[in-house]
Amino acid sequence: MSLKLGLVGIGKIARDQHIPAIAADPRFSLVACASRNARVDGVANFADVATMLAEVSDLDAISICTPPQAHFDAALAALRAGKHVMLEKPPAATTREIALLQDEAARHGRTLFQTWHSRFAPAVSAARDWVRQATLTGGTIHWKEDVHQWHPGQQWLWDAGGLGVFDPGINALSILTEVLGAEAFVRQAVLEFPENQQAPIAARLDLRTEAGLVIDAEFDFRQKGEQVWDIELHGATGRLRLSRGGSALEIDGRLVVDRPAMEGEYAGLYARFAELCAAGRSEVDWRPFQLVADAFLIGERRTVAAHQV
Amino acid sequence: MSLKLGLVGIGKIARDQHIPAIAADPRFSLVACASRNARVDGVANFADVATMLAEVSDLDAISICTPPQAHFDAALAALRAGKHVMLEKPPAATTREIALLQDEAARHGRTLFQTWHSRFAPAVSAARDWVRQATLTGGTIHWKEDVHQWHPGQQWLWDAGGLGVFDPGINALSILTEVLGAEAFVRQAVLEFPENQQAPIAARLDLRTEAGLVIDAEFDFRQKGEQVWDIELHGATGRLRLSRGGSALEIDGRLVVDRPAMEGEYAGLYARFAELCAAGRSEVDWRPFQLVADAFLIGERRTVAAHQV
Repeated sequence: MSLKLGLVGIGKIARDQHIPAIAADPRFSLVACASRNARVDGVANFADVATMLAEVSDLDAISICTPPQAHFDAALAALRAGKHVMLEKPPAATTREIALLQDEAARHGRTLFQTWHSRFAPAVSAARDWVRQATLTGGTIHWKEDVHQWHPGQQWLWDAGGLGVFDPGINALSILTEVLGAEAFVRQAVLEFPENQQAPIAARLDLRTEAGLVIDAEFDFRQKGEQVWDIELHGATGRLRLSRGGSALEIDGRLVVDRPAMEGEYAGLYARFAELCAAGRSEVDWRPFQLVADAFLIGERRTVAAHQV
Repeated sequence: MSLKLGLVGIGKIARDQHIPAIAADPRFSLVACASRNARVDGVANFADVATMLAEVSDLDAISICTPPQAHFDAALAALRAGKHVMLEKPPAATTREIALLQDEAARHGRTLFQTWHSRFAPAVSAARDWVRQATLTGGTIHWKEDVHQWHPGQQWLWDAGGLGVFDPGINALSILTEVLGAEAFVRQAVLEFPENQQAPIAARLDLRTEAGLVIDAEFDFRQKGEQVWDIELHGATGRLRLSRGGSALEIDGRLVVDRPAMEGEYAGLYARFAELCAAGRSEVDWRPFQLVADAFLIGERRTVAAHQV
């Protein structure tokens, strides 16, 4: 029997990734959607999550892909109604909200799956395997994309709490924390805020590990021409380059994985969600989000040219 | 037998609070200090913590009261040298650093006591008792002091990572999280940054709990005249006012605790540290620090007049 699923937040990521992945997975049946403005054909549509939960009483689970500012209230309502919950990244508006949702899921005996889709990119597991046998000496992250191309008109990214360039940048941090095999923290940071916006358009992070490893990260939302989502890790006897957001992997200059960008990421997320629901377990890892909060906490703020969304 | 203690960071808080509290507690003997510039009479003095750890091999514990940017390296070195560690607030530069130190203490079987001195203020336990029998309906925090009076010349407060007005404000959050009996998170925030500094001089937080309780907090470092460190909590059948940083308590307008400010706070901290060392346990609660990081993460930033330290 498949899980009756409600999808909350019908925007670009819902249509590009969630709806096709759900349709392809026999363990889920999409039966309802909640969105202020959008409708999905062939399912029950509601203006908000509270109405959806009240009207479709046999829902088993909901998947939330609204902007992060709305995650907490939707997830809390769903968990209290006894539903399993999957959260798109970034997981919520604040790190405390995730801690509270984790407690709430445990209290109700329901699954909370706080997702990082980039961890399901095709080359990530091979990168992790390489790191396990390497002695790392350092690394760099370059995550540079054109926000006008990838996030047209998304003002929520630029409002207070919208994360700006950390919205893609957190994908890099989710991969790094997954493959590194050591705990990273932010030693220093510089954040560039457009003079007319509340979120940074670029950031540089000096990340460290307890063992003294240094990883420099550069995030930029103003990239023209080639778009770059690369993580390089240097070992004592070789080097790794994970590129195109985790879909390609070079080891010592040799291409060992080369797949289409985002291939299988959302299929992997929904497969994991089904497993977690069946096992009655949750999966929550807010370390990448903490790194972002810490960058805001200690980052030097610089004001740069205005940005038009 | 008393614990041989090293004190790291000899500034105003060390001389005003730590050294007298240690001298009055027979469970500790202050045998060494580490400070770049200052010396303490009657003990071995070192320029840095690494030298102190190397030269005074029979130290049992160290207490760290440097600016928070230096906590992590000092604590890590001490834990790795097998010492118990007590950390002054704010606990470190970032929330991830605390998580890592917690892991490190467990790995070495040593005590990590991450302190919040305001929780040891004379009226806090009575406030907690009142909250336990109350049905709360809301609350306010006013934490307003003159930075020139209380932190003269302390530029580290204003550098990136220095926390600004959250340095005192986190004391209010440490009391709130101790007495509230429910989990709070930051719903909205406004941070006011002087145009020439990297840390906020004032902040307003809209705090909520899962149960929908609203607590409004106002922090301000520009307060002239009466200095205010007040938490008010309203219940269905009464109200509480914790004032002067937790040293006075009114319930329904009646003064029930009235003690000198900070009385017993550091005596209480060192007594707890001795108990934790004896029991082989750690005490770490970074929720107040997470609330601050979350306020930086989602806070609307406003630029205000320059501030001269």
